Amino acid sequence: MPSTGTTVAQLGERGLLTRVLANIPASRDAELGAGDDAAVLHAPDGRVVITVDTMNEGPDFRRDWSSGEDLGRKAIASNLADIAAMGARPTGLVIALALPGSLPDAWVEDFARGLSCALDECAPGVGIVGGDLATAERIQISVTAFGDLERRAPVVRSGARSGDVIALAGDAGRSAAGLALLAAYANDEPLEQLRESCGPGGTALLAAQLRPVAPIAAGPAAARASASAMMDVSDGLLLDAHRMAEASNVTMRFERALLEPFAERLARELSESPGLPDDPLELVLRGGEDHALLATFPVDVVLPEAFTRIGEVLPPEPSRLLLDDEGREPIGWDPFSN
Amino acid sequence: MPSTGTTVAQLGERGLLTRVLANIPASRDAELGAGDDAAVLHAPDGRVVITVDTMNEGPDFRRDWSSGEDLGRKAIASNLADIAAMGARPTGLVIALALPGSLPDAWVEDFARGLSCALDECAPGVGIVGGDLATAERIQISVTAFGDLERRAPVVRSGARSGDVIALAGDAGRSAAGLALLAAYANDEPLEQLRESCGPGGTALLAAQLRPVAPIAAGPAAARASASAMMDVSDGLLLDAHRMAEASNVTMRFERALLEPFAERLARELSESPGLPDDPLELVLRGGEDHALLATFPVDVVLPEAFTRIGEVLPPEPSRLLLDDEGREPIGWDPFSN
Repeated sequence: MPSTGTTVAQLGERGLLTRVLANIPASRDAELGAGDDAAVLHAPDGRVVITVDTMNEGPDFRRDWSSGEDLGRKAIASNLADIAAMGARPTGLVIALALPGSLPDAWVEDFARGLSCALDECAPGVGIVGGDLATAERIQISVTAFGDLERRAPVVRSGARSGDVIALAGDAGRSAAGLALLAAYANDEPLEQLRESCGPGGTALLAAQLRPVAPIAAGPAAARASASAMMDVSDGLLLDAHRMAEASNVTMRFERALLEPFAERLARELSESPGLPDDPLELVLRGGEDHALLATFPVDVVLPEAFTRIGEVLPPEPSRLLLDDEGREPIGWDPFSN
Repeated sequence: MPSTGTTVAQLGERGLLTRVLANIPASRDAELGAGDDAAVLHAPDGRVVITVDTMNEGPDFRRDWSSGEDLGRKAIASNLADIAAMGARPTGLVIALALPGSLPDAWVEDFARGLSCALDECAPGVGIVGGDLATAERIQISVTAFGDLERRAPVVRSGARSGDVIALAGDAGRSAAGLALLAAYANDEPLEQLRESCGPGGTALLAAQLRPVAPIAAGPAAARASASAMMDVSDGLLLDAHRMAEASNVTMRFERALLEPFAERLARELSESPGLPDDPLELVLRGGEDHALLATFPVDVVLPEAFTRIGEVLPPEPSRLLLDDEGREPIGWDPFSN
């Protein structure tokens, strides 16, 4: 349905439901979708994996930087990554959306398109099974996602064992580099102009920040390949690895040489954008929001295709984190102190 | 843990998680609770019933009217009522909470106490299996709740058949009467004083609005008793019954004589609070937020204990709603137009 130039308040709840839900694929695993008091979703192995995450306009995104489509895509990537990080296959989602009455209806269509495209691309067959609409002064997007473990045990963060290989699927530092570009330039020039001035590399980094793509299929693949521990890297490699190291009572040792390719790619992509952080390796280690999968595997396992080896698990040492032989602090992201 | 006079920002995410989650019961059905990327909840019959609902400070509640405990209790009642309305037994919940940094930590403890008490009272064994914490200018509470159908078919709103009995479990109009009391008086006098001046009846109505109690166990009981259709009454009896009538292609006929006891109770409770709506039956028909269960049953069924007969299902007529023989309009609640 083409945009009619109306607002969310003019459309009303019923119009919004038609508008938001009409173009979003149904879930192959839904027995009963949206429209009743609750949905019914298949949970084939008798358990359901559940995660919830909220994105709020203001602390989590700016509407002049992120389009509705960006946010729809990011909502899918960030939530399905948490399902994948347990080794589960995503089966469906519910979305609680609160919108200002003055929001143009085109934003909602754009958001729905982002949800649909991201689902088609990273989790075909998965769809929205229910939701809730409310009013708020600023946009709120709260997604609860579901998955099926296909009779495997969940891959928890406490399973890393000394001698395991540490491996990563997905990006590291690229989303944070995109955010640095936005912070440095986007207040002075419109986003379109910024995309031109920072070249294809910078544009790719902006995309990594605004519409990250998570390696969803790599999660179940890692579980099938006997991953001993796994996590979604949303708060940065060091901080999330520190959580895994604490939960598993081990030390995680990253090899600088194995992280260099990530840093070199970042350096290339940033080359047309002067004035940005000049140590790409630190972005790789500390940048958040990539929604990569950090996993550990027994040393004799052939890593699934999406994964790259980046280090090894050691017995617990005074430092939980090593870069080669140098101890590193977990640099953190706390929404209440940033 | 006693309140320390600190704020949410001072506590930080970790402190909040300890504070919010420490006192909330775990879910008997959880295989893996909060603390990893996702939770794992049992879904014994191979399906999971899912509902989501958000309460936002401003449009949905005022902090000077509702305490943290009130809101914790209301979040449980409103969400579990949707699970019960499918005929399912609740199994767990996840909560996405966004809080202003300046909020006192005592509010969070109070909220957690409300969650715990309501769970203990209306769904023992059910607990929180995960959540998300974020910052926002005003409080946001988004709850996703889960249930198990115990191998029964879900009781949907489209199953009402001509000849069925219409029955109600729970309150009708009492929550709206409490809201009317608040709207009429609470801006001029503090809540404590209002409770004294409106007597025990008015105090009970305030409680019905601020901390409604939903008849959770009545949902599965109705399903076991072969209910043909069921809904949570959150937007008012007429409006929700109209939805059931449309979905089932029937007319719902309420009997004034059977609704009178609800209206008489309301009249008694309102008797010490002059100046309020003088037609209690209209509050019974149109008031929202009671989280009662509206169900239809084949005529030969003995109604489960919590249910009272209030009317009968007729073949479709030009009017979907009748009060005795008078057609009634569905009076609605649309968050975007109220």
